[in-house]
Amino acid sequence: MIIVGEKINTSRRSIAEAVEHRDGRFIAEVARSQVEAGASYIDVNAGTFLEREAECLCWLVETVQAEVDVPLCIDSPNPVALGEAMKRHKGEPMINSISLEPDRLRSLLPIVTAQPCRIVALCMAETSMPTTTEERVQAGSELVERLMNEGVPLESIFVDPLIQPVSVDTRMGVAALKAIQTIMEKFEGVNTICGLSNISFGLPERRLVNRTFLALCMCSGLSAVILDPTDKQLMSILLAAEMLLGRDEYCQDYIDAYQDGRISG
Amino acid sequence: MIIVGEKINTSRRSIAEAVEHRDGRFIAEVARSQVEAGASYIDVNAGTFLEREAECLCWLVETVQAEVDVPLCIDSPNPVALGEAMKRHKGEPMINSISLEPDRLRSLLPIVTAQPCRIVALCMAETSMPTTTEERVQAGSELVERLMNEGVPLESIFVDPLIQPVSVDTRMGVAALKAIQTIMEKFEGVNTICGLSNISFGLPERRLVNRTFLALCMCSGLSAVILDPTDKQLMSILLAAEMLLGRDEYCQDYIDAYQDGRISG
Repeated sequence: MIIVGEKINTSRRSIAEAVEHRDGRFIAEVARSQVEAGASYIDVNAGTFLEREAECLCWLVETVQAEVDVPLCIDSPNPVALGEAMKRHKGEPMINSISLEPDRLRSLLPIVTAQPCRIVALCMAETSMPTTTEERVQAGSELVERLMNEGVPLESIFVDPLIQPVSVDTRMGVAALKAIQTIMEKFEGVNTICGLSNISFGLPERRLVNRTFLALCMCSGLSAVILDPTDKQLMSILLAAEMLLGRDEYCQDYIDAYQDGRISG
Repeated sequence: MIIVGEKINTSRRSIAEAVEHRDGRFIAEVARSQVEAGASYIDVNAGTFLEREAECLCWLVETVQAEVDVPLCIDSPNPVALGEAMKRHKGEPMINSISLEPDRLRSLLPIVTAQPCRIVALCMAETSMPTTTEERVQAGSELVERLMNEGVPLESIFVDPLIQPVSVDTRMGVAALKAIQTIMEKFEGVNTICGLSNISFGLPERRLVNRTFLALCMCSGLSAVILDPTDKQLMSILLAAEMLLGRDEYCQDYIDAYQDGRISG
């Protein structure tokens, strides 16, 4: 499972304050703790800084890469901020995210195809959020084909089915799960990714719902996930599911995590 | 999800003592607490009493049915004990279990076809435990066909893929999950059932592994499960998965369970 650590996002107050005061030590610590907990990418998002986003995002990229060796997931719909941040990034970043929305596609496509990178592709049609499996598969497929036509390798595309709350419509969980499965079967070698927390919007005990949904998504073939890897219960179910899905030779990762105190039973 | 409460089994010391001393009040309480926690069947097993099994099993059937209104899952490979206990049972019981092993099939088939009942059908070939998905599907399919030829309705058959430990062979989780999915697709309307705990044999934090496996099994189509419904964390993941799989209208069961204090986040 490819884990993208979600914590360096200025929508969190402690991160916004650290960015405001250029507190590199705090940001470095949040990055390192996520890598130690299993993240293969660190997401960086400075969206709340609006017209200062490019400058803040560039500082985040340099600060995090000075501390940890993993690539970053550069998280912005702003082509200027994204382009500047990508120039500072060492190695091959992940770009979060592109969609079929005409303005977004037109402005981001030249940027994400200018250098090798992984790309999160949202299953969002030109104008609307998807509701059914079919809408997700349709939008995701169109975007995969557009990106491949531009020379992006299939393995570098991370299709995000877009999670919507089951409290609003109880069919939303199944629609996303089936979209993950269908896309993984239709494009062999592609990746799928999602954030989890929208699924539980409006419900009690959201963390329970999120981690249960993670197990279901993994069973449906999900290959990457954006989450907080320092959430012990969430990572425990992820490690157990990896093992149960036959991806943990000799159960060694699970047993190591247990012995390191990283598992909460 | 059809839940079979597993707690009334004389391999548990407190149950063995209650059966020995004919402590009907204790047995009734264990039965009632499982029904209140969501069980639709109560499993009764007196296998440790060996030559007194029939007499003890009959007492259990009568004691439990005096307390609760749900049918029982009569759990014995002993045709005499099973036949006697079925005669005492009011309504349509579930019989746990039959397999293709020649002696077991020959002795149990006339008993389970003599009156309407649900039947747990183990994916065990004539002589050996299954390892691959294919062996499970082959054995399960043969047994389903034998039972249907005897007039048992498909909906009354509960195929059990037989769970083996991932600590022994990391392919065992996937083999069982795929068997569940294949059997559910091959025989539309059939049920699948399993006990969970073998999957985690030899591993630390077994309850975490068991409840993660429950979510994966449910995603693969499992329709019934033998478990301890008073295990709050296990039932929490079951209720969350039911909701996420679109089987909980308006999320009402989940929210009710939360409000009743039956969910542990």
